[in-house]
Amino acid sequence: MFFVFKAGIEDADRERLLTELRDQGLRTLAVSGNGARAHALVGATSVLEGLDLDRHPWVEEVIRDAAPYKRASRALHPEDTVVKVGGVPIGGDIFIVIAGPCAVESEAQVEAAAEAVAAAGGRGMRGGAYKPRTSPYSFQGHGALGIELLVAAAGRHALPVVTEILDVADLPHFQNKVGALQIGARNMQNYALLREAGKSGMPVVLKRGLCATLEELLLASEYILNEGNDQVILCERGIRTFETATRNTLDLNGVAWLKHHTHLPVLVDPSHGTGLAELVAPLAKASVAVGADGLLIEVHPQPAEALSDGRQSLTPDGFAQLMRELKPFVEATGRRL
Amino acid sequence: MFFVFKAGIEDADRERLLTELRDQGLRTLAVSGNGARAHALVGATSVLEGLDLDRHPWVEEVIRDAAPYKRASRALHPEDTVVKVGGVPIGGDIFIVIAGPCAVESEAQVEAAAEAVAAAGGRGMRGGAYKPRTSPYSFQGHGALGIELLVAAAGRHALPVVTEILDVADLPHFQNKVGALQIGARNMQNYALLREAGKSGMPVVLKRGLCATLEELLLASEYILNEGNDQVILCERGIRTFETATRNTLDLNGVAWLKHHTHLPVLVDPSHGTGLAELVAPLAKASVAVGADGLLIEVHPQPAEALSDGRQSLTPDGFAQLMRELKPFVEATGRRL
Amino acid sequence: MFFVFKAGIEDADRERLLTELRDQGLRTLAVSGNGARAHALVGATSVLEGLDLDRHPWVEEVIRDAAPYKRASRALHPEDTVVKVGGVPIGGDIFIVIAGPCAVESEAQVEAAAEAVAAAGGRGMRGGAYKPRTSPYSFQGHGALGIELLVAAAGRHALPVVTEILDVADLPHFQNKVGALQIGARNMQNYALLREAGKSGMPVVLKRGLCATLEELLLASEYILNEGNDQVILCERGIRTFETATRNTLDLNGVAWLKHHTHLPVLVDPSHGTGLAELVAPLAKASVAVGADGLLIEVHPQPAEALSDGRQSLTPDGFAQLMRELKPFVEATGRRL
Amino acid sequence: MFFVFKAGIEDADRERLLTELRDQGLRTLAVSGNGARAHALVGATSVLEGLDLDRHPWVEEVIRDAAPYKRASRALHPEDTVVKVGGVPIGGDIFIVIAGPCAVESEAQVEAAAEAVAAAGGRGMRGGAYKPRTSPYSFQGHGALGIELLVAAAGRHALPVVTEILDVADLPHFQNKVGALQIGARNMQNYALLREAGKSGMPVVLKRGLCATLEELLLASEYILNEGNDQVILCERGIRTFETATRNTLDLNGVAWLKHHTHLPVLVDPSHGTGLAELVAPLAKASVAVGADGLLIEVHPQPAEALSDGRQSLTPDGFAQLMRELKPFVEATGRRL
Repeated sequence: MFFVFKAGIEDADRERLLTELRDQGLRTLAVSGNGARAHALVGATSVLEGLDLDRHPWVEEVIRDAAPYKRASRALHPEDTVVKVGGVPIGGDIFIVIAGPCAVESEAQVEAAAEAVAAAGGRGMRGGAYKPRTSPYSFQGHGALGIELLVAAAGRHALPVVTEILDVADLPHFQNKVGALQIGARNMQNYALLREAGKSGMPVVLKRGLCATLEELLLASEYILNEGNDQVILCERGIRTFETATRNTLDLNGVAWLKHHTHLPVLVDPSHGTGLAELVAPLAKASVAVGADGLLIEVHPQPAEALSDGRQSLTPDGFAQLMRELKPFVEATGRRL
Repeated sequence: MFFVFKAGIEDADRERLLTELRDQGLRTLAVSGNGARAHALVGATSVLEGLDLDRHPWVEEVIRDAAPYKRASRALHPEDTVVKVGGVPIGGDIFIVIAGPCAVESEAQVEAAAEAVAAAGGRGMRGGAYKPRTSPYSFQGHGALGIELLVAAAGRHALPVVTEILDVADLPHFQNKVGALQIGARNMQNYALLREAGKSGMPVVLKRGLCATLEELLLASEYILNEGNDQVILCERGIRTFETATRNTLDLNGVAWLKHHTHLPVLVDPSHGTGLAELVAPLAKASVAVGADGLLIEVHPQPAEALSDGRQSLTPDGFAQLMRELKPFVEATGRRL
Repeated sequence: MFFVFKAGIEDADRERLLTELRDQGLRTLAVSGNGARAHALVGATSVLEGLDLDRHPWVEEVIRDAAPYKRASRALHPEDTVVKVGGVPIGGDIFIVIAGPCAVESEAQVEAAAEAVAAAGGRGMRGGAYKPRTSPYSFQGHGALGIELLVAAAGRHALPVVTEILDVADLPHFQNKVGALQIGARNMQNYALLREAGKSGMPVVLKRGLCATLEELLLASEYILNEGNDQVILCERGIRTFETATRNTLDLNGVAWLKHHTHLPVLVDPSHGTGLAELVAPLAKASVAVGADGLLIEVHPQPAEALSDGRQSLTPDGFAQLMRELKPFVEATGRRL
Repeated sequence: MFFVFKAGIEDADRERLLTELRDQGLRTLAVSGNGARAHALVGATSVLEGLDLDRHPWVEEVIRDAAPYKRASRALHPEDTVVKVGGVPIGGDIFIVIAGPCAVESEAQVEAAAEAVAAAGGRGMRGGAYKPRTSPYSFQGHGALGIELLVAAAGRHALPVVTEILDVADLPHFQNKVGALQIGARNMQNYALLREAGKSGMPVVLKRGLCATLEELLLASEYILNEGNDQVILCERGIRTFETATRNTLDLNGVAWLKHHTHLPVLVDPSHGTGLAELVAPLAKASVAVGADGLLIEVHPQPAEALSDGRQSLTPDGFAQLMRELKPFVEATGRRL
């Protein structure tokens, strides 16, 4: 349940009502709708149903919404949130494409990738320095050095960087360097990491877990928002189903559902979502059409020699062609690329 | 494995080589690539690998393709198949929208629906007369009478009809009346029904089963094709996953994959695929963008009073708006509506 | 909702109340609890809630149960149903093992299998004569001849036969020959086939579909029960999930849930449920322990040469060992083998 | 691939061969088979296939095994590993039942639970002090204080404690207090946490993720084993599927498969695996029969008032009855309770 204070109610009065509500065992959450006047109430249904806030003289509006996510909900925050990643606005009029290699492998590789991304009209760069790998014996990424190489290459082409963090202890290597922290599918419910990402105040790209429901994704984002950090971008990257012809099943239903239920921006990663380079372009177009705010795309100078995920990476030429092909679809949505 | 006879090889010689191959335990399937000169070979891998057809003087080309679907494969039939449903071509330059109610309920209802579909630019009408219902105590449809009502209403607006058949014994009620038989998700592997649909020679819309793999869908189509009926249209209508926020998970990866691996046309049903009227438009646009050849959409004059599936049905106004919104996306694909 | 007439209410009075209920738009279903005095009511919730049957002078008891399956429910039929397959009681004190090859291949093969099954203590024989195959180019079974061979071999060892029917038209080949019709996973929602199986009056083994919910399985059984045939045996045979290490995921939760919610007997097929011969024994024991009424097991004289499913078939020796190993687990449940 | 040095080869010689292998780009892993003489080789298939270790004079045996988990594999370590949790051996002749409440709520609650567990023959106590909750607004557990209460209560009844760790920073609150760290389903691929759990040297109960494959579970265990900690216990707790009648789908196929492929002990948690108290007993029995080494069971003095998971918790009486009912099944496996 949400309620909005009338404009002009004094701070002391507001606090008085909030305390009264807390005394009934409810949690009160400041949410970002209607200036700073909106609050969500979380607690036992029986208590919530017994309240009579609708007639309270200081209350402008009560919105009954049973969804357990509060700060992420559109119910009181109907307008889209725009998150700025290194100056690039995500969630607004521009459809944002962020691209780059799965893993940072070498200086030459990230330079070639950054050049290709910028030349084709990409507005941000992705790339893994700390790599979450299913096996401890697989390449684990170059770590802090990888971030240095990635940030340097991207910087030469004026691209902000989005890259994954696996361990709270590594946070200093990301701060003041990367445009956004990425929290990957495996860590979507690593609450210690979500809280620290929230406290960092940095923009966060939160990827959906392989078998996370949409509600669980929004509740995971709520851990970040609850630390006072509203710079959260969601990302659909495919879920795990019985189908094995594609690496994952990209859930575009989920993207449309998210745009309906939350004000946070939503990206799609068709590279992981399909696992097959030849399917990236059609699913990228579909992501545009379904209403996503942008894309994460894997681009590698030599996909066949990539240390990971080569099968799903586009070449620089393939990426340039994708950007040309996306244009009419982006324009059909009333946005620009 | 496929091979193509050289042009000009005489029938008797062809038959001689085919017999020789059959004597080795292989099955030979005439497929529709390269005129009537192409054949698929099905059988034990060891036998297939031992053949030396590449050097055979009558053989123009050998294509090694491990996929178990043969007649549906693009390997020897690279050009798209166009299926005509009552004169309407599916799989060509025109993006086809077929719409109508979940179930035929009354003469007035189908008339209102047909009028709405035609007015907005739909090119075919859907509607269930024989309804597959999870419970034997739910409304089972009006049967043969339902088909009469549907065909009459659609005919007044020059729309061909697509409607589901559940039982081979009902076939006479469909023949010479409907434009295409629909085989529903529950019957995708009802081989008796697939074979009879094949023998009928009528166009068939074959819907993917709720947990059928893409390969199983193509193999089910192969049962129809194998009866000499190449008028098969595939339809993605959502698969069953762990996600419950939407009724099903529409697998647009699957649509792109199918367009890559088969020459048969592919429709998408975003009404069943999402189960939520408010998500039909974004997923319809995404289906256009991903490369589908058309849509099946549920439209009902009064969704709130529908006997089934009201939650996912568009109103006539909603449908007209959808058609307007689809236009720029269809044009972005180089097709027309 | 269910209600039970008091004992001694006259037929004409009963019919009067039933007609009254039907006039309110409800469907009345005779169910087998409390002699012939129990009825289920199916219809709109609003109508059901408005009834005041509890105080009706002819009514002994009203049971409010929201489950949509009525005749299969334990709510009014708490005692287990025992189904007799060729004289063998399934669902009672004896734990029943039915075994045999995936497909009937030859007279010698079924004779060897029947001998092995009987010698080890199996009480019924399984084997496919009409085979549902994913590809039309795979071996489709020997059909009516296969049934002859199977029934003859099983008969020599006094075993009743359970075998799959795919097509209503084949029913005469099954009648007066086999002990029970099997309806396979692919046809669980082939309603035309379910209805005919119901009308046949023969015992039916109904296998759960690969992605059918437990409620859908019970509703499918309701199609058979609704034709007046209460000789239905359910079978869990594994569902389709993301896990690929095993062929399917055997849902033993589902078996316990079914035993809780229905009075019908439940078998388990660990051969299809695992797809791996080395996992059949542990899962067979687990099926006993979880409360199943019996097993379907694939046994083949030479699994390595089987035309289908060899990887999951036991040898005669392996089957004999399984039967010995099952004994203490069956006894731990208070049953005998 | 694995190889084993002959007995009597000197350390310097061993190191020489290992260095030679590393120089070819391979990783060499000491594994626990055949004394300290066994090693696994991880690296490019082409390099592995080119080796000729079989004829090397210092090498006793080469085992070609393509599985990517090496230290967890049974290939070179056929005998079962027994892990001691506070003196209680898991994986040996005794079937171990560990029970307790979902969350530590109060001193009285854990005391009542500990008493019930010990009285009925449980050999360890479970209970959450740090709770991973889908929503940040749900009860998060009493943290360090919760561990104090749990350890004190369990200690009074001579039960070692298994409890979940969410954050590496909390490790000091677990060390020298609890018998085993639990890593929950949400953190199965939180590699930072796995590595620290490995370094701690404490026994670890690693729960399978909701959509983790069995191979991924073994590879997650490999992160712990790779830190030199071989005290790892796996736990199946249900996977996420389309079925919603039960909270999860308990994958007993997976337990049998794991016992076949790894030497590590395997527990089952039928409380989370079913989500329904009335299904815990049948699935517990099935877990015994399928070959699990023990159980995790939720027991709460007043399930109806539990702060979390009350629907799946047994009462003390229900737990005592379960233990009595398990006995004959445990004995049927040749073990004791």
